[in-house]
Amino acid sequence: MPQLRKDPILKQWVIISPERGKRPSDFKKVETAATDDAEHCPFCQGHESMTPPETLSFRTAGTAADTPGWWVRIIPDKVPILIPEGDSNREGIGMFDAMNSIGVHEMVIEAPDHNTTFSNATPTQVKEIIWAYKQRLLELKKNPRYKHLMIVKNSGAGLSALSHAHSHIIATPIIPKRIEEELEGCREYFHYHDRCLICDIIKQESKSKSRLVYEDDNFIIFCPFASRFPFEMEIAPKNHFPFFEMLENSMVPLFANTLQIALKKLETLLPGQPYNFIIHSSPCSDSYKDFYHWHVEIIPKLTKTAGFEWGSGFYINPTPPEDAAEALRNVEIK
Amino acid sequence: MPQLRKDPILKQWVIISPERGKRPSDFKKVETAATDDAEHCPFCQGHESMTPPETLSFRTAGTAADTPGWWVRIIPDKVPILIPEGDSNREGIGMFDAMNSIGVHEMVIEAPDHNTTFSNATPTQVKEIIWAYKQRLLELKKNPRYKHLMIVKNSGAGLSALSHAHSHIIATPIIPKRIEEELEGCREYFHYHDRCLICDIIKQESKSKSRLVYEDDNFIIFCPFASRFPFEMEIAPKNHFPFFEMLENSMVPLFANTLQIALKKLETLLPGQPYNFIIHSSPCSDSYKDFYHWHVEIIPKLTKTAGFEWGSGFYINPTPPEDAAEALRNVEIK
Repeated sequence: MPQLRKDPILKQWVIISPERGKRPSDFKKVETAATDDAEHCPFCQGHESMTPPETLSFRTAGTAADTPGWWVRIIPDKVPILIPEGDSNREGIGMFDAMNSIGVHEMVIEAPDHNTTFSNATPTQVKEIIWAYKQRLLELKKNPRYKHLMIVKNSGAGLSALSHAHSHIIATPIIPKRIEEELEGCREYFHYHDRCLICDIIKQESKSKSRLVYEDDNFIIFCPFASRFPFEMEIAPKNHFPFFEMLENSMVPLFANTLQIALKKLETLLPGQPYNFIIHSSPCSDSYKDFYHWHVEIIPKLTKTAGFEWGSGFYINPTPPEDAAEALRNVEIK
Repeated sequence: MPQLRKDPILKQWVIISPERGKRPSDFKKVETAATDDAEHCPFCQGHESMTPPETLSFRTAGTAADTPGWWVRIIPDKVPILIPEGDSNREGIGMFDAMNSIGVHEMVIEAPDHNTTFSNATPTQVKEIIWAYKQRLLELKKNPRYKHLMIVKNSGAGLSALSHAHSHIIATPIIPKRIEEELEGCREYFHYHDRCLICDIIKQESKSKSRLVYEDDNFIIFCPFASRFPFEMEIAPKNHFPFFEMLENSMVPLFANTLQIALKKLETLLPGQPYNFIIHSSPCSDSYKDFYHWHVEIIPKLTKTAGFEWGSGFYINPTPPEDAAEALRNVEIK
């Protein structure tokens, strides 16, 4: 079973996953993406038996679970980093803290076809993916042991072993450190100003335009003032709202449209570049709702982070976000 | 001039470096290491005119600066991310904070020969590199505007554009966020226990042996309990001491020996794998000296960090540190 261990200096949790057990011989070469094709792909329609049983799918009426007929399908990870069953078993190991890695780790298969991507999918398909995220998170949220829910997508060569479009759903029994840091920053600003920090950022970016990529009445896309990476983007709803999974139904197609605009612009400007996106929603408790504002981070993986970044926690970005925003703003998409 | 910008949510500083200005066309392919050879290498002996003038060198008596005759040579970076001159110009840009990127960014050329590495260098050469680090940091520390000094090495394909062995010296006008986090963890433990956290970790690792890689009377190498990466190692002096740069002279060859043992073990176990090391010394002020203990982090770059790590701040490590330590401990080195 994977174990969560706490770094006593940085108070950061690490998942030690011996099930993914890697011995020195497994690292003889720097890892490269596995070659995979539709014939051997466990995520393709018709190959449902190659995966664990689905936890949710949107499928044609009358088709059975784990058979063809679906358009979005959610399954547990084959080698999960977090396990839904069992006791958390918090324990001290000498001066150190550890617990069982309780939680949920699932994969959202974003389309039955091997070559569909967020950029080339139909608007309807993107909307269905967002529906699936929302519906699955709402279900997971009913379990009080999960403190935080997250959607993560790793797209492109080197970031994922499988090229068939998919994303991850992660539910954790602790609030991850990075989220704690966001909460802390937002809470402090709220106490001082009685306003949501992210609301204020959105207003400023919408007004100043220099880092604006796109906006409509409901959503905004901009390159953050202190972007850590070239062409980093943030998407947020314009009105204050803490929980992605509680997004109003009428907003689902609007958000799907905005997300697809961002990813199409990126794909047109930097064809084939790998990227991550992460949907940050408030932790499950209601106590953060006044000052946390759900948002999406899109991080193209164009630069390598090296010792300086790891060692210092600050980043070097060779592309000013104003230049990145201008280039992204001017991209025409189909 | 590069600019330091503060992320208002995470309170993290980012260096925006338009001098390294990257437009979309510069990213057409994922960056790969530049091909370089001794003939075109600016760091090779005889090519001194290809670099900015040296700030320190250890060289044969009678040879002039920026000519052959050196065995370790320190130069400013050609495209520095931090600039030593000028005013810091702290300013508010709307609701955001920025300042000029004041500081020092220098390169330590670790040997005159193109193919020397930390693993194949003579013990004398490694000792001289450590002397050079120490001497240059002590000089930089005289300037009160620098709050923190750091040594970083990126070794291997993909981590550095130049293969000729070199490391970075970085002096910053602020304490980097990652270091602030370490200080906070160490301070809290000290207030509670009246003991240094890292001293206690060293004692436990030395006693329990399960994560021990090497120890002698003065230094210890171990794999941290919550290692974020496979085969991650930490080196620390056994006796409490905050400042690397104030290491006693008699300890320099002993530390050089320990560092070389760690890197030789890594190179023997995982030949040719890229790695980083970072020497963490206390910030320049004396106020941290009771609870901060200098140490070295060695991070082999075997796994790719993806969206999950970026988004959550917690890491997935497929190699338990006990297994990593056992493998490293058992490596015979020449």
